[in-house]
Amino acid sequence: MTRQVRCYDCAETYGIDDRKRCTCGEPLWFETDSSSFEWPDEEWTTGMWRYADVLPVTDPVGVPPGTTPLVRAARIDEYAGCRLHVKNEAQNPTGSFKDRGTAVGVGYAVQTDRDWIGTVSHGNMALSTSAYAASAGLECAVFVPADTPVERLELIDRHDPHIFRVEGDYGRLYAETLALETGVWFINSDTPLRVAGQKTVAYEIFEQLHPAEPDALVLPISSGGQASAVWKAVRELESAGLIDDVPRLYFVQAAACDPIATAYRNGESVVTPVVADETIAISIANSDPPSGTRALVAARDTGGTVISVPDNEIRDAMARVATSVGTDVEPSSAVAVAGVRRLSRSGDVGADDDVAAILTGSGYKERYDAEVDSRTIDLDDLEQDLASVVGR
Amino acid sequence: MTRQVRCYDCAETYGIDDRKRCTCGEPLWFETDSSSFEWPDEEWTTGMWRYADVLPVTDPVGVPPGTTPLVRAARIDEYAGCRLHVKNEAQNPTGSFKDRGTAVGVGYAVQTDRDWIGTVSHGNMALSTSAYAASAGLECAVFVPADTPVERLELIDRHDPHIFRVEGDYGRLYAETLALETGVWFINSDTPLRVAGQKTVAYEIFEQLHPAEPDALVLPISSGGQASAVWKAVRELESAGLIDDVPRLYFVQAAACDPIATAYRNGESVVTPVVADETIAISIANSDPPSGTRALVAARDTGGTVISVPDNEIRDAMARVATSVGTDVEPSSAVAVAGVRRLSRSGDVGADDDVAAILTGSGYKERYDAEVDSRTIDLDDLEQDLASVVGR
Ligand SMILES: [Zn+2]
Ligand SMILES: [Zn+2]
Repeated sequence: MTRQVRCYDCAETYGIDDRKRCTCGEPLWFETDSSSFEWPDEEWTTGMWRYADVLPVTDPVGVPPGTTPLVRAARIDEYAGCRLHVKNEAQNPTGSFKDRGTAVGVGYAVQTDRDWIGTVSHGNMALSTSAYAASAGLECAVFVPADTPVERLELIDRHDPHIFRVEGDYGRLYAETLALETGVWFINSDTPLRVAGQKTVAYEIFEQLHPAEPDALVLPISSGGQASAVWKAVRELESAGLIDDVPRLYFVQAAACDPIATAYRNGESVVTPVVADETIAISIANSDPPSGTRALVAARDTGGTVISVPDNEIRDAMARVATSVGTDVEPSSAVAVAGVRRLSRSGDVGADDDVAAILTGSGYKERYDAEVDSRTIDLDDLEQDLASVVGR
Repeated sequence: MTRQVRCYDCAETYGIDDRKRCTCGEPLWFETDSSSFEWPDEEWTTGMWRYADVLPVTDPVGVPPGTTPLVRAARIDEYAGCRLHVKNEAQNPTGSFKDRGTAVGVGYAVQTDRDWIGTVSHGNMALSTSAYAASAGLECAVFVPADTPVERLELIDRHDPHIFRVEGDYGRLYAETLALETGVWFINSDTPLRVAGQKTVAYEIFEQLHPAEPDALVLPISSGGQASAVWKAVRELESAGLIDDVPRLYFVQAAACDPIATAYRNGESVVTPVVADETIAISIANSDPPSGTRALVAARDTGGTVISVPDNEIRDAMARVATSVGTDVEPSSAVAVAGVRRLSRSGDVGADDDVAAILTGSGYKERYDAEVDSRTIDLDDLEQDLASVVGR
């Protein structure tokens, strides 16, 4: 497999160890020749490693990510306004889609005899990187904003990484870690190894639906790394002759922090930082997305859009997913389903469209000060209390 | 598929709708003719439904449980004292092994046009049942001990079931719900439908390892339903001619609440209730296990044992799994790994034995008042602070 990485924009190439970003300022990804790729014979139990032929790393590390369920969620169709399929990435080993990129990044560090791995994250990626570093016996440094909730840090700390809470601008932190010369190999969210791993979710969606094909993919967007990965996958599958029609790619942000949607709405060709408000979708609250412009190109290239949804719609979508799909996702995942509803109302998505929404992360890592609706009864009154609720 | 259920002990048979337990007092399970069963051609993406030929329900409902990773966890071998494989049931849709039995139970309720489903649980099973009921559009009643932590109830409540907090004896509650005539179909933890679903985890372990075979399976035990299911699976696979040697089945309890291990130690033929102390392994703290005696027979039948481990060893095992396998499990799961260590020290398990430990549930649903080991730094000091930790 090539270790060449290329700029999607100016097409300049580099060695993976030489640069993290193009001299033009845009992010890089691996050059991948998928022209002879075919759906693998490999067992699905190998997870995302079934796609090793198109990955820069082929030796699995830790618990294999991937082979997450893709479910036809008909009970939510009316709400969504289309034929909805949900891809439950919450079932990855550490409860989020991040494990795919982490496994490739940590695998590369092992393969190249590195001792240290690092990342910059609001939570899910720090947890994922810490877990995979532990599985491989690597030292791990995670950098989080100083105000990251202690509940999130407690989960990360269970894998015993070195946790740095950083006072200062997140976008600058993200960029500066990639330039450090400390012997720590950083796998931040839009780096080439991570994008390579993340693309496998789209490979899976297409292979699971095959021979049917989705008309559109809808996913939350933060740094733009995952969105770039899905775009890359779709192009690779097209090059392999495995899909007939490239699906529209729709990316969804929280309205309180939506730099990419803002750029899309304004017809800009480049994404610039915004001043963000608070949102419950904290995992995707990135006001200065490093792959924002690449994602903008991806949406336009495929006939999709970038939109944003307010917190009340995110909350509503989260409850709908829990009560009609039976899946508990974090707010940042529910954003995708809220987005599908908006897209169907705006006519971008039709009632007959097969739409796959990526549910990126588990709701189990989140706690809310919610009222619990319950009743306390005495065992001696069991039958009558139940009968009164059942209505018999 | 038969709807006959049979007593493992006295061999009496009944219709599934007629009785929940044998007149002799022991639990029932489905009669299953597996003699012509072969490893299926079905895709692994169908999850446990690939084993529909040996299930009493064949129509999937909700997100498919199963196809969870089985990982060779070599970094923990020295600690475990054997060649350890971990089956990560935490990656099921609601984060625990319970989804397998729930999917069959809810599937049966759908297939027989029932409107209400119910269960009695300390947490995981209530969560699982609520989620699958939601996915199928059924009403759901869950009964939990009145002192169940509100944090657990909050997760369950997201799927909007009817939650009853019950003051009174848990064992009595468990039994009485099964005798109610309220139109609610109860799928408690050792009922035949649940045992049928739970057995698929053992089918998966054998198929994933095939043609190799595990020498032993080690799992936590609470009601005895899951242990019974694994025993049933092993017998069915033997009958199908798909395994050469029946593995030893080892069941592990928390020392503070170990009625089945106590009965085993004392050479009893029947499990009787104990007065329990507190343990961190709350999901398996069942002092009056309804399938305890059946599990005792299973251990003896296969050359295994039932043991218990103290809380400090459970804590230690939990940390080892997090820091060397990269998997965050609840204390009740770590019990299995602590058990393996005990079994290797006692000579029951040898260094060359391939042992599969079932990690039954995710650690993400649990919160501890743990100290987080982190440092707060200023972005301007990034490089020097990281370098000082890395030691460069
Ligand atoms: Zn460039
Ligand atoms: Zn009997």
